[in-house]
Amino acid sequence: MNKNTGVNAAIIIIGNEILSGRTQDTNTSTISLWLNSLGVKVQEVRVIPDIEDVIVKTINIVRKKNNYVFTTGGIGPTHDDITAKSISKAFNVKYEVNKEAYKILENYYKLDEFNEGRQKMSWTPSNAKLILNPTSGAPGFIIDNVYCLPGVPSILKSMLGGLKNEISGGKPIISHTINLRTVESEIAKSLTLVQENNKDVEIGSYPFFRAGKIGVSIVIRSDDKSKIEVCNSQIFEFVDKKKIEIIKSS
Amino acid sequence: MNKNTGVNAAIIIIGNEILSGRTQDTNTSTISLWLNSLGVKVQEVRVIPDIEDVIVKTINIVRKKNNYVFTTGGIGPTHDDITAKSISKAFNVKYEVNKEAYKILENYYKLDEFNEGRQKMSWTPSNAKLILNPTSGAPGFIIDNVYCLPGVPSILKSMLGGLKNEISGGKPIISHTINLRTVESEIAKSLTLVQENNKDVEIGSYPFFRAGKIGVSIVIRSDDKSKIEVCNSQIFEFVDKKKIEIIKSS
Repeated sequence: MNKNTGVNAAIIIIGNEILSGRTQDTNTSTISLWLNSLGVKVQEVRVIPDIEDVIVKTINIVRKKNNYVFTTGGIGPTHDDITAKSISKAFNVKYEVNKEAYKILENYYKLDEFNEGRQKMSWTPSNAKLILNPTSGAPGFIIDNVYCLPGVPSILKSMLGGLKNEISGGKPIISHTINLRTVESEIAKSLTLVQENNKDVEIGSYPFFRAGKIGVSIVIRSDDKSKIEVCNSQIFEFVDKKKIEIIKSS
Repeated sequence: MNKNTGVNAAIIIIGNEILSGRTQDTNTSTISLWLNSLGVKVQEVRVIPDIEDVIVKTINIVRKKNNYVFTTGGIGPTHDDITAKSISKAFNVKYEVNKEAYKILENYYKLDEFNEGRQKMSWTPSNAKLILNPTSGAPGFIIDNVYCLPGVPSILKSMLGGLKNEISGGKPIISHTINLRTVESEIAKSLTLVQENNKDVEIGSYPFFRAGKIGVSIVIRSDDKSKIEVCNSQIFEFVDKKKIEIIKSS
């Protein structure tokens, strides 16, 4: 939980609809995979309700512990969209009309369509930098190391492309997966040894059930390709000895 | 964030595979929907890595703030399964063989199959109560208000049924959804008024895109059916006035 071990990020999913179980969050994996490719590792995700006090406190905790914080949700036009106002409060800055955002929305909507609800979407923390939205006009925003994105997955995805240059990551995190026709308990001891011999590599073991057959995925993650290769060959060694079928290695 | 407003829960998803984006968490919505039906409201979800120190700290924060804590993941046989050990540390109790769990697993596996990895799954915090697993043998466990479940969604689901009597919830939380053929900004002002008139009801507004058409779902949540009905009729009033098409109300 410190900034010294690579570049880290937190994701804060803001929305009662996720907590209630009504909506299945998919933004976490979208943002995480994108950040991996930029050399940023997500070290925590929190899902919190649309409550100002909770948003303020959560943001002020995570923004100090992480290089980057990404929020999703709560930047639309309705009463439950309180992210921009809450983030302003967290940073103790004014919550006000962002002139650039106002212009973008003014151009996006026809004159008689640019109503009060839509105008609300031009409000951001004072001096926030905008994140452009190629899908539906209303921008996200950046203040310090906090990046605020919408909750609708397709819109969020469309906005990540333009953000790439804003992120200074470390070396991209490489992930290598070995799928085996076995059960976890069969390989647990040998895999523990490989992990102990390679302490700075992240090795995960995940059972799966596909088409009625069981198996285990071993996932090796590191920003150093050669370290992944060392683990890989140590794993293949015991797999070979135990005569375990390799389904796929990728 | 206090225990006085109904019965609350936190969900802690333990697993690097969720943080890396490799695996899409679905356990949050499974547990949340199940808890809603028992009158328990999930007020926070955290996804954390397979790091003992982080698990210990997180559990010790959330177990004091919530009536119930549910963890998923990290109770299998491999080196990255450190939930039981970490929870023992959080509660400052011994991490040891649970005799009941050992018996269950001994009966579940053939004699020559009950290897070291599988025996590891019988270790729990001292005096933990078991959560039976009708799918794959290895039990979860309960210590104080913390309920530890596996990460594999199908196994987790199969274990919730047996847990029902362990949970003392409040009144079940009822959710009512009104789907409208409109955009959020069209109804934002009127919906804000309804929320202001019904402060103790949770009203959410969620845009959707289905089959090329846009719409808005208004979700009303409360444990009091009559309060939902009041909101419902106030919403239908402005929907009617604005001549907005109702797609479905459920």
